[in-house]
Amino acid sequence: MNTAMLAALRAAVGAAQVLTEGDLVAWEQDWRKRWRGKALAVVRPGSTAEVAAVVQACAAHRVAIVPQGGNTGLVGGSVPDGSGTQVLLSLTRLNKIRAIDAANLSVTLDAGCVLQTAQAAAREQGLLLPLSLAAEGSCTVGGNLATNAGGTQVLRWGNARELCLGLEVVTAQGEVWHGLSGLRKDNTGYDLRDLFIGSEGTLGIITAATLKLAPLPAARTTAMAACATLIDCVRLLTTARTRLGAGLTGFEMMGRFALDLTARHFPALPQPLPGAPWTVLLELSDTEGETEARSRLEAVLGQALEDGSVSDAVVAESLAQAQGLWHIRESIPLAQAQEGLNIKHDISLPVSSIPAYVASTDALLTQHFPGVRLVNFGHLGDGNLHYNVQAPLGSDPAAFLAAHEHAINTLVFDALVPFGGSFSAEHGIGALKRDELAARKSPVALQMMRAIKQALDPLGLMNPGRVLATEPAIQEAQSAPCSKPLPS
Amino acid sequence: MNTAMLAALRAAVGAAQVLTEGDLVAWEQDWRKRWRGKALAVVRPGSTAEVAAVVQACAAHRVAIVPQGGNTGLVGGSVPDGSGTQVLLSLTRLNKIRAIDAANLSVTLDAGCVLQTAQAAAREQGLLLPLSLAAEGSCTVGGNLATNAGGTQVLRWGNARELCLGLEVVTAQGEVWHGLSGLRKDNTGYDLRDLFIGSEGTLGIITAATLKLAPLPAARTTAMAACATLIDCVRLLTTARTRLGAGLTGFEMMGRFALDLTARHFPALPQPLPGAPWTVLLELSDTEGETEARSRLEAVLGQALEDGSVSDAVVAESLAQAQGLWHIRESIPLAQAQEGLNIKHDISLPVSSIPAYVASTDALLTQHFPGVRLVNFGHLGDGNLHYNVQAPLGSDPAAFLAAHEHAINTLVFDALVPFGGSFSAEHGIGALKRDELAARKSPVALQMMRAIKQALDPLGLMNPGRVLATEPAIQEAQSAPCSKPLPS
Repeated sequence: MNTAMLAALRAAVGAAQVLTEGDLVAWEQDWRKRWRGKALAVVRPGSTAEVAAVVQACAAHRVAIVPQGGNTGLVGGSVPDGSGTQVLLSLTRLNKIRAIDAANLSVTLDAGCVLQTAQAAAREQGLLLPLSLAAEGSCTVGGNLATNAGGTQVLRWGNARELCLGLEVVTAQGEVWHGLSGLRKDNTGYDLRDLFIGSEGTLGIITAATLKLAPLPAARTTAMAACATLIDCVRLLTTARTRLGAGLTGFEMMGRFALDLTARHFPALPQPLPGAPWTVLLELSDTEGETEARSRLEAVLGQALEDGSVSDAVVAESLAQAQGLWHIRESIPLAQAQEGLNIKHDISLPVSSIPAYVASTDALLTQHFPGVRLVNFGHLGDGNLHYNVQAPLGSDPAAFLAAHEHAINTLVFDALVPFGGSFSAEHGIGALKRDELAARKSPVALQMMRAIKQALDPLGLMNPGRVLATEPAIQEAQSAPCSKPLPS
Repeated sequence: MNTAMLAALRAAVGAAQVLTEGDLVAWEQDWRKRWRGKALAVVRPGSTAEVAAVVQACAAHRVAIVPQGGNTGLVGGSVPDGSGTQVLLSLTRLNKIRAIDAANLSVTLDAGCVLQTAQAAAREQGLLLPLSLAAEGSCTVGGNLATNAGGTQVLRWGNARELCLGLEVVTAQGEVWHGLSGLRKDNTGYDLRDLFIGSEGTLGIITAATLKLAPLPAARTTAMAACATLIDCVRLLTTARTRLGAGLTGFEMMGRFALDLTARHFPALPQPLPGAPWTVLLELSDTEGETEARSRLEAVLGQALEDGSVSDAVVAESLAQAQGLWHIRESIPLAQAQEGLNIKHDISLPVSSIPAYVASTDALLTQHFPGVRLVNFGHLGDGNLHYNVQAPLGSDPAAFLAAHEHAINTLVFDALVPFGGSFSAEHGIGALKRDELAARKSPVALQMMRAIKQALDPLGLMNPGRVLATEPAIQEAQSAPCSKPLPS
């Protein structure tokens, strides 16, 4: 079978773009090196028509497809399993900016465009592509959409889904859905666009998209504020939203221990508000100038100082100072890694529930796992916390994780339930959280998801075993268990 | 069968809420009186559990259900067909505001809440529910979501879909999906929420929702500007977006003939910019005060006067003046009705394509239908035009429509194709545009929609014949042709 299959793939994309030998680690392993699989072949189509031809060939031979963009996902969704039976379909050769329409504030581009390249193309025309995340130098726009990526601009602009106007998709049948659109309003039938967005390649393959752009802001200003409690942080958020409206483009929270770690591991970093139990980073993007922006942000902080929600604050006086403040925030994950192995969470809650959740879950964790250290930071404005757990000082972190990771996850996720929280705010499901989804999502929702999967991908060949468990019949015929996580 | 069915309905909701006799016109006829059907029964459940019980009873007896909110839709989606075999399920008794979470900027409410009531509840807490449309005094939030309603705030806040955080839905199987959520980020599986939104009751019944709120703006200012061409209107839009950012909450366009009609039929209305070929209404919502808002809007108009995109402009000096300017815009449909029967369109285009589309389509229409008068106005900022066609002066409008309506629709819709426009921007499909959808949507998209409909509603009982044609097997067994439009 493999010979005929490979011949069909070579016919579809040319022999040079069907890789079966040599070092394929760049496609078979995720960038954090937590999963390593084995592909039947790595296939690199150069056009939407070639993607369709690959899918048709795979459908004819009943071979599963794992689509891959920049391979920067965090949940094992973009690498093949270990069976050697899955085709890894890389989208990176589809990398053209097709058109920028400045008057319509939209860009149409291939799925394999690197996000940073797309941002730069927009900026050249004085426009902002308001999607920004740590992996932007490597991740692709198609992957951003397939996973409904979040990042640092969500408070103002929403996730990737909210930035997308239209899609071009190769269906599981190898047909092309020409759903690209620059329209803000179009009520002609079911919302297929948003169904493909966030489906992680399990329903079809996104080959191009039209995204919203915005005028570049005239000015950006950043500040940091010290709060005594998380309740005060939420009060400050309300004040900032009321007075700044859509100008508030960043509202990040950092707990004391998170900043202690950055101070310990990066002593050269400034510590503008030492000792603050909670520190908030605020960013204002303004259509007026720098002076207006700074005075608006100062007015917010002035009101917060007056009403007691903030005890101290600094406003960046220059772009360099603003970048310095952001750098503190961005150094937390690295400082955490320096401190040793830890358990990462990507949870979300209604903003109003965050103080109560953190208080009660902190208490439960320290009660059940004495000495654990809680590294709490994240996109508070979006209700999204990276509520991470560091092993007790002096313990062997690897041994601690081996013994307690599962129980700690269960505690953290169970505690979300009464608050209506989510165990995966922005990273998605992939292979890593598939069983968590099966256990925690409502049976009614799961049943609808399975029905949709069956309706759009009846052969079960699109990224099988991701998001939803593979159906038993397909599993036997098609695929081995997913690749196992490697030690991280 | 009917006896057992009615007994089951009475058991589900109580005999008093199952109406089969007397004057049921309020439920069986739409508010514009274009469709009149006949229901097997009008059923008025008082809770989500009762909705589920009704759906279960209908599924058991293979009876179709037409869900209805305020019955203000424009496309015949919310009234039963003429067969007397469909259950009309009214959601209006589900009308509680369940909770407002000010810190999370969200409201959870029953589907049957009247939009205006929900707006008022938010306003009492100093918050804005940013969905606003002409029918807001009668339409329900559930209907707004089922049809993905648009309205006058879309430029800033998007359609109903973009305001929704979570849904509670009774599925076609009569199960309850508890998908209410106050989360801004939740990447746990397929986007079921957005699939139900805009599906017009054909996949399930929305019984409650969580919507986004925003702080009330501190000030609102309105202006009108005269432009020589539609290209100038688009240039003004770019200027306003760049300088006002998200503060620009309204950008409405009115063609000369549309304003001539308001002047003719409502001579008491002010005519602030007489003779302008195109008039634009701009609205700025600001987080600062009235003075700041006015000076920002004046600065935009100053720049536009300087670059020549605007030839004259007025800024409202008071709330009364602002309302007066909006009143001119809102009087156009009434003036049109006074002028006589006409053909209405609700089309959308990329904003950048509007000048070219209007120029070429105006020319085609006047060439093929000499003397037709074009009433062009709408939400230019959203790319949404009400591009209406009035019969030639001196002709019999009814005879003109009878002879030419179909050909004019075809011309207007065909002309959208090269620009990637949509023949239904905000009003949806319902029964009215179902055949248009079948003819104009891509076969790949239609096939996916049918597969999803089949997957979620395999018995085909949810609002059959709306959006998608009823499958032949179901059609024979279940339903007569849709109710015929009455003369409007």
